[in-house]
Amino acid sequence: MKKTNDITANGEEMNSLIRRLYPICRSITGNGVRETLSILQETISLQMHEVPTGTNVFDWSVPKEWNIRDAYIMNSAGEKIVDFKASNLHVLNYSMPIHRKVSLAELKNHLFTLPETPDWIPYRTSYYNENWGFCIPYTTYKDISDDLYDVHIDSTLEDGHLTYGEFLVEGSDRQREVLISTHICHPSLCNDNLSGIAVAAFLARHLSQQSSLRYSYRFLFIPGTIGSITWLSLNEKNVTRINHGLVATCLGDTGRFTYKKSRRGDAEIDDVVAYVLENTGNDYKIVDFSPYGYDERQYCSPGFDLPVGCLTRTTHGEYPQYHTSADDLSFVSSGCLGESLALYREVINVLEKNRTYLNVNQKCEPQLGRRGLYKSTGGAEQEKNLQLGILWLLNMSDGKHTLLEIAQRSGLQCELLSEAACLLKDAGLLEESTS
Amino acid sequence: MKKTNDITANGEEMNSLIRRLYPICRSITGNGVRETLSILQETISLQMHEVPTGTNVFDWSVPKEWNIRDAYIMNSAGEKIVDFKASNLHVLNYSMPIHRKVSLAELKNHLFTLPETPDWIPYRTSYYNENWGFCIPYTTYKDISDDLYDVHIDSTLEDGHLTYGEFLVEGSDRQREVLISTHICHPSLCNDNLSGIAVAAFLARHLSQQSSLRYSYRFLFIPGTIGSITWLSLNEKNVTRINHGLVATCLGDTGRFTYKKSRRGDAEIDDVVAYVLENTGNDYKIVDFSPYGYDERQYCSPGFDLPVGCLTRTTHGEYPQYHTSADDLSFVSSGCLGESLALYREVINVLEKNRTYLNVNQKCEPQLGRRGLYKSTGGAEQEKNLQLGILWLLNMSDGKHTLLEIAQRSGLQCELLSEAACLLKDAGLLEESTS
Amino acid sequence: MKKTNDITANGEEMNSLIRRLYPICRSITGNGVRETLSILQETISLQMHEVPTGTNVFDWSVPKEWNIRDAYIMNSAGEKIVDFKASNLHVLNYSMPIHRKVSLAELKNHLFTLPETPDWIPYRTSYYNENWGFCIPYTTYKDISDDLYDVHIDSTLEDGHLTYGEFLVEGSDRQREVLISTHICHPSLCNDNLSGIAVAAFLARHLSQQSSLRYSYRFLFIPGTIGSITWLSLNEKNVTRINHGLVATCLGDTGRFTYKKSRRGDAEIDDVVAYVLENTGNDYKIVDFSPYGYDERQYCSPGFDLPVGCLTRTTHGEYPQYHTSADDLSFVSSGCLGESLALYREVINVLEKNRTYLNVNQKCEPQLGRRGLYKSTGGAEQEKNLQLGILWLLNMSDGKHTLLEIAQRSGLQCELLSEAACLLKDAGLLEESTS
Repeated sequence: MKKTNDITANGEEMNSLIRRLYPICRSITGNGVRETLSILQETISLQMHEVPTGTNVFDWSVPKEWNIRDAYIMNSAGEKIVDFKASNLHVLNYSMPIHRKVSLAELKNHLFTLPETPDWIPYRTSYYNENWGFCIPYTTYKDISDDLYDVHIDSTLEDGHLTYGEFLVEGSDRQREVLISTHICHPSLCNDNLSGIAVAAFLARHLSQQSSLRYSYRFLFIPGTIGSITWLSLNEKNVTRINHGLVATCLGDTGRFTYKKSRRGDAEIDDVVAYVLENTGNDYKIVDFSPYGYDERQYCSPGFDLPVGCLTRTTHGEYPQYHTSADDLSFVSSGCLGESLALYREVINVLEKNRTYLNVNQKCEPQLGRRGLYKSTGGAEQEKNLQLGILWLLNMSDGKHTLLEIAQRSGLQCELLSEAACLLKDAGLLEESTS
Repeated sequence: MKKTNDITANGEEMNSLIRRLYPICRSITGNGVRETLSILQETISLQMHEVPTGTNVFDWSVPKEWNIRDAYIMNSAGEKIVDFKASNLHVLNYSMPIHRKVSLAELKNHLFTLPETPDWIPYRTSYYNENWGFCIPYTTYKDISDDLYDVHIDSTLEDGHLTYGEFLVEGSDRQREVLISTHICHPSLCNDNLSGIAVAAFLARHLSQQSSLRYSYRFLFIPGTIGSITWLSLNEKNVTRINHGLVATCLGDTGRFTYKKSRRGDAEIDDVVAYVLENTGNDYKIVDFSPYGYDERQYCSPGFDLPVGCLTRTTHGEYPQYHTSADDLSFVSSGCLGESLALYREVINVLEKNRTYLNVNQKCEPQLGRRGLYKSTGGAEQEKNLQLGILWLLNMSDGKHTLLEIAQRSGLQCELLSEAACLLKDAGLLEESTS
Repeated sequence: MKKTNDITANGEEMNSLIRRLYPICRSITGNGVRETLSILQETISLQMHEVPTGTNVFDWSVPKEWNIRDAYIMNSAGEKIVDFKASNLHVLNYSMPIHRKVSLAELKNHLFTLPETPDWIPYRTSYYNENWGFCIPYTTYKDISDDLYDVHIDSTLEDGHLTYGEFLVEGSDRQREVLISTHICHPSLCNDNLSGIAVAAFLARHLSQQSSLRYSYRFLFIPGTIGSITWLSLNEKNVTRINHGLVATCLGDTGRFTYKKSRRGDAEIDDVVAYVLENTGNDYKIVDFSPYGYDERQYCSPGFDLPVGCLTRTTHGEYPQYHTSADDLSFVSSGCLGESLALYREVINVLEKNRTYLNVNQKCEPQLGRRGLYKSTGGAEQEKNLQLGILWLLNMSDGKHTLLEIAQRSGLQCELLSEAACLLKDAGLLEESTS
């Protein structure tokens, strides 16, 4: 009950955060990102990093910084037929500045629409290919009359910085990290990815309040692709610390959960997420890794091959609102955000509990009776299972099986096995395996 | 036909043995065990071992020896309302001696019943927690009137010995043993485990009459848990001789056969039993190892991890008569006992035949024709299969495949392949692999 | 369309070749084999090898050479009731010479028939057991009247040679060969194996016309069993060059394709053929290796264990015409022969393309945009797949995955991935793995 209230409250807080962040025009660089990270600093004390334009990051180079103040298309009657102030999606993200009159024919080469969903504005970008453009509903597009249009994009594309946020929750082991990565480059789009930002931030806050964590947790709030490439390039020597990782995105819609496995496919994080999803009792979907998606593409590039999966609700591209103006505030809900946060917390709960133990008396069973650990298995279900859990742990704790593997083999819950492990440790019968 | 008669005769002999052993009050120590082993010595010349109370065996210590002569509950009218002489199950096994008057209220704390099967006496023990008690039908329990009861248990719990029986059938290889282990600690219960004792004893007799065995066969007649722990402790340095093993129990009821695999799950014994069960053509069940059950718990503890499975009919706990007075002489039959013995014999037959061979001419097929081993495969089914068996053996005998693996890959029977192997050995084309 | 025309033309050419070869009386040795190979030399410049009688080849010895000019059975009225000139199947293949009168009773011991298909002549041999005989329709057999018969077989069985043909197409790598083996020992039987001979010869011609091949291709036209044993014995030291191989036979009938896997079962050729068969969209069958069949028995004997499978249409023994006079010119068709050749060509196409690449930038994705390799995946299906192919190749090219494995994991076609690999190689992003 307490947990449910907690989740409900968190869901509403995350929704409020999304409402504040929604109007900001973000991109892979620029002040929108800085403003977003500043707001997140009210929730967690994240560190803001600035990487100068031109910095070489593997095969790439940090691009010029883009900022925009205003943009519109005005007809000869002086009416703004498209206005950045109405929606920041109207401008092709990373558009060059432009201030001139163009014919309808020329204009049309720079307009993007979605004829199949004619009322929606598409979200388009042109980061590495200098261009300008406007994204508009098809209903607006088809009514544009022949005219000379005043096109105005008050943007700058200049040397500056790529900005990202980083937050570390230190656990007892500084050398073993869990990475949570979320992209912060999208403008007014809610599910992709204000939902991921909100869940990551609240998960970070939750973990920073825990008194005893085994792993350290590193949260990255970065622009997609260039952000993860930049971070990996700057932190290459510490990458081996990453024991597990998740890319957090698309976490506010009502769809079932989807987990895309790491490139390895059999990493511990893959098993843990599958176990937690199965335990929810709800429908879910697990898909194999593919090199198309979010920043897992970089974490799972062959030179790194990190154990990083991607845990979302409905996958990008599987809902029509994806990358359109319809991915708005009505598309995400407090309830779904809360549920997503709860799932991430449970994944981490199982990761923390998934230790490997060593039975101190591997030859035959120890005598449980004289240690008060022997109960008839004829008792209540829970007590019977605890007794079975004790036997399973003793039998499987040869240093080769994790708690999760014992759960899967025995059909018992991780939670219960973890409880049994505590009893056995207290009785001096089990030790945590250090290797 | 001969085999069938043999099995029928064996079934009846085993049933007679069970009838003689049934009345004896056995426990994990004491004279009941000695008397039982003495009777078994009429069938096989087993060796009786005595291990003193207090001997340290891994995390355990051999307990005091328990013996009982009589026990009853007498009401104030001098009537024995519960009498050990009627059934040795009436006494909580390992009860301390007691001779005093108790109120009904106190007495009830020491009575055990089965309300769901009110006419049956439960079987209960208290080996390592000193206590006294009586097990009675619920119908008796619910009619006990308020009275002062004379409770009398004429038992002793004193320093003595743990007794077990051991029988070795020496095969041509003294360093490779098959272990058959059965527990002898239960009082008047037939399926669990006079059936296991009888099948093990008659299997031992059968093997001791064979002129040529490849493996040596070690039979253990031991008290459950403490018996296997004691034997493993005393024989720790020879345990690596155990190449295969089975725990024999619950072999007299009418249920289908159940095989519980060794902890390894892919041991040769696991494959052999699965093959033999499949070949019976009858329904059967194979379950994975779990650390709850009989002495396989100790043999399969992680420090030993021996290839020992448990081959039963209906599993303990899956029939309501389990550990009650209803597991009586009517619950087991000569026919089922005979069938169980036949199955164990067939398992050993396949284990003996499951050799690994080396083809002497591994490059291309040898010329079978000039050795009289080439028959057209257009002949009778049996001759055609023998010809195929010859080809399969030659092709797969690279020292990496056992006869059973060749049987599984080819779909041919082990028996037929063994016959083909003899022909090829006689022709000098095949040798047994020594490694 | 061009390809289809090509296949149709090839099918008709192969059928014409079969019509020329059909009347020749072949056996495991003799002039029939030489004449057959001479005709094949019109298609490919194969080399003819002669191995003397008595040459030791592993456990065997090259047999005497058999030649036959004529044979008949004449009744007392001077009528030839069976005449070799009508069908060379009439003579038991490898019959000793005989010229004498025999009673009907004696004659019947030397007659072979097929009562179930009474109009067909069976095909029988007696290579290693000196004998004489005639194969006749059962309808002829049952009408033979009591008489004294003049039996005449004008054959010779004398020291001579075993003859086989060999043809090598040299690719860029002389040390890595693909073996195509087909048997040439059957007389007037079309599917088994003039179809295999024709497909092998036309495949050889096709490959010899290719300008750039990665592998070298070795074609063997050999008598069954003794031919492959002889070749393996004489070429033992070069056998390790064989990277992949197929036995070609039974390729002219209308049945579905059947692939019998190599003994290894997971060889690259096994995966490639399975992939190609699946891609045909037609029904097919894949069966595990068994040591009964054609020359794969020798290539896959344990001392060699070469990655050689057998790719046929209907398997030997699964069609009633097998080894009878009904396996005649009407049983094979140009269309089916052409289809079989096309399948073999596609298998080789995939083998050639199935390379392993190394991504030059394994840490993070390279920037595809500035190399003109980045297209929106929102484009046409083919372009979208090419883009996905680029991403898959970059991600999986760590030197451990072949192109086929990437095809299977991604669901993309080998052809498309090969095209993507060329683009990436041209851009300097991918290199072929040399190990």
